[in-house]
Amino acid sequence: MNLKYDVEELTNFIRQTLISQFIPENDAEIISERMIDADLRGMHGHGIFRLPPYMRRIHEGGYNINPNIKNLHETPVSALVDGDNGFGQLVMTHAADLAIKKAKESGLAWIGIQNSNHAGAAGVYVAMTLSHDLIGIYMAVANANHMPPWGGTDMLLSTNPIAFSIPAGEEDPIVLDIATTETSYGKVKVYADIDKEMPVGWMLNKDGTPLTDPKKASEGFLLPIGGHKGYGLNLIVGMMAGVMNQANFGSNVIDFNANFKSPTNTGQAFFAIKPNLFQSLESFKKETDIRIREIKNSTPMDPSNPVQIPGHMAVQREKEMRRNGVPVSEKTTQLLSELEKKYNTKVPFHYKGA
Amino acid sequence: MNLKYDVEELTNFIRQTLISQFIPENDAEIISERMIDADLRGMHGHGIFRLPPYMRRIHEGGYNINPNIKNLHETPVSALVDGDNGFGQLVMTHAADLAIKKAKESGLAWIGIQNSNHAGAAGVYVAMTLSHDLIGIYMAVANANHMPPWGGTDMLLSTNPIAFSIPAGEEDPIVLDIATTETSYGKVKVYADIDKEMPVGWMLNKDGTPLTDPKKASEGFLLPIGGHKGYGLNLIVGMMAGVMNQANFGSNVIDFNANFKSPTNTGQAFFAIKPNLFQSLESFKKETDIRIREIKNSTPMDPSNPVQIPGHMAVQREKEMRRNGVPVSEKTTQLLSELEKKYNTKVPFHYKGA
Repeated sequence: MNLKYDVEELTNFIRQTLISQFIPENDAEIISERMIDADLRGMHGHGIFRLPPYMRRIHEGGYNINPNIKNLHETPVSALVDGDNGFGQLVMTHAADLAIKKAKESGLAWIGIQNSNHAGAAGVYVAMTLSHDLIGIYMAVANANHMPPWGGTDMLLSTNPIAFSIPAGEEDPIVLDIATTETSYGKVKVYADIDKEMPVGWMLNKDGTPLTDPKKASEGFLLPIGGHKGYGLNLIVGMMAGVMNQANFGSNVIDFNANFKSPTNTGQAFFAIKPNLFQSLESFKKETDIRIREIKNSTPMDPSNPVQIPGHMAVQREKEMRRNGVPVSEKTTQLLSELEKKYNTKVPFHYKGA
Repeated sequence: MNLKYDVEELTNFIRQTLISQFIPENDAEIISERMIDADLRGMHGHGIFRLPPYMRRIHEGGYNINPNIKNLHETPVSALVDGDNGFGQLVMTHAADLAIKKAKESGLAWIGIQNSNHAGAAGVYVAMTLSHDLIGIYMAVANANHMPPWGGTDMLLSTNPIAFSIPAGEEDPIVLDIATTETSYGKVKVYADIDKEMPVGWMLNKDGTPLTDPKKASEGFLLPIGGHKGYGLNLIVGMMAGVMNQANFGSNVIDFNANFKSPTNTGQAFFAIKPNLFQSLESFKKETDIRIREIKNSTPMDPSNPVQIPGHMAVQREKEMRRNGVPVSEKTTQLLSELEKKYNTKVPFHYKGA
């Protein structure tokens, strides 16, 4: 049973917990907001759920809690952001803001990011472009290798996500946030918890046979979307978010679930572009609305399930959560209570009802 | 049984056939080279195979054979190329050259393309960046809708390809060229020709059940890679290559297999970026080589099938074809002979043995 918490209180709890461990106040504010932004999109695996492991990483010395984030090799349309091993949310917010600023001035901008960390939900960052009427693209090297290259068995690849945002007119914008794997390792863990068989196509055993028992997940590996196609996309994300920024990719990726001490040198990339480089913003938005409506009003296979536009459900989820609270699992609630005691944060941590 | 033709002779045959129908000589040269480039990558469905339908389109008035290709809304890092309904190969070569020129000067460039046509293999265009040590990205709205949005049944989407190129050092570069569908309609036709059952996952019937009989393909539709994920990618490509450039996408896509008269207003997008915006080219190439070698030397699932790097097989195929000729099916050879007679091109059209 999930408990539901007020958005502001939950954000404040994260903020206070971070401040108690000497994260600067402004930084704690940004980190807490980005984490709750993930919850508000429905990406609960990247929201407050992550606070306990992040706190452990602070304690074991894996984070630089007072990073000096720098822009290197800057041009009007590009920069390499050195995250100085700060929180990923902090580094990525800096990078997305920089891309937005440069794209507004120069039409487009590509920001490479090195020495960053896990930043949570990709959709959160691309969505930052929307209020500026920009299209966004985000790529990241994920922080644990659970997949071999296609046709191989060595775990050299992670779930490497890619995300896009497209502003619309009267319609809600398009926000796509996908891993290049068929499923996430987090989802596999959920299936293991409830002892549910996984569908064929999510994972393979090392001999190439389907792995459907989630309790045996550690014996096999995740599968890319579309076989060799998703493997290729995964590799490209690794090259453009990792190698291009002198960040880790391949065998030098640090497994952040196993190692809380070593800097991860996480690589990300962020691109922003003005759609009105090519036509008026008005005509772009009008045509975007037409295409969105055409798809969402198209014939569904099952009449009770209308066709969805990527990102539209997230808008509804956020409205619902702002009204009725953010769902947090009992297990996470328990872990958060432990943090509360440990750090003596004494934040009013009420739940608003199940 | 395929016949094999000399690369130069085959290119020359295309060139002469185009010139016979009043395509300007320089344009015919570019178009023929890009078409054979597709064959040389092994993408035979986008090579000389396309000459008969292209000639039909010329005859029915679907092409502007003497287009005035213009750069609109130009900035140092962007432009909208108006293809004036010329051959896609011509328009895309212009656009890729422009992106490369601007990226060499400014670090990166995004070129939108409108009023273009089918340009063949995506990999051909991104590969053009490699000799300039640039990374390339290409997206296109494909020219026939064979897929509904995920969960729907209305044919609003095509195979919308996306391609990437990454230069390497001593290793062959990475070139990824994928449709966002599990398979192409061309491949389905091949299965129908040889009366072979398709695997589950390629196509669905309108009621959502798997369609595996390729002869019934017209009753069903293609499936995206990774379900809703590939649908999302497909939609993003449609927005960035189509809508952003005031090109066709969705219900206004012209089916170029059925309609040879109407301008298709095909949309494409091309992006080029210098990896040495973020580090020296030397260190980028060195690290790229390390990651390529790590993957290609990793343990294969089947010891007789080494792990592949996207684009590496194409390099081998080109070498093989330059030595031993380009394979052309008997059916295509017959169609080409008909063109030869019709246009009286009298090109020495020898085959080099089966």
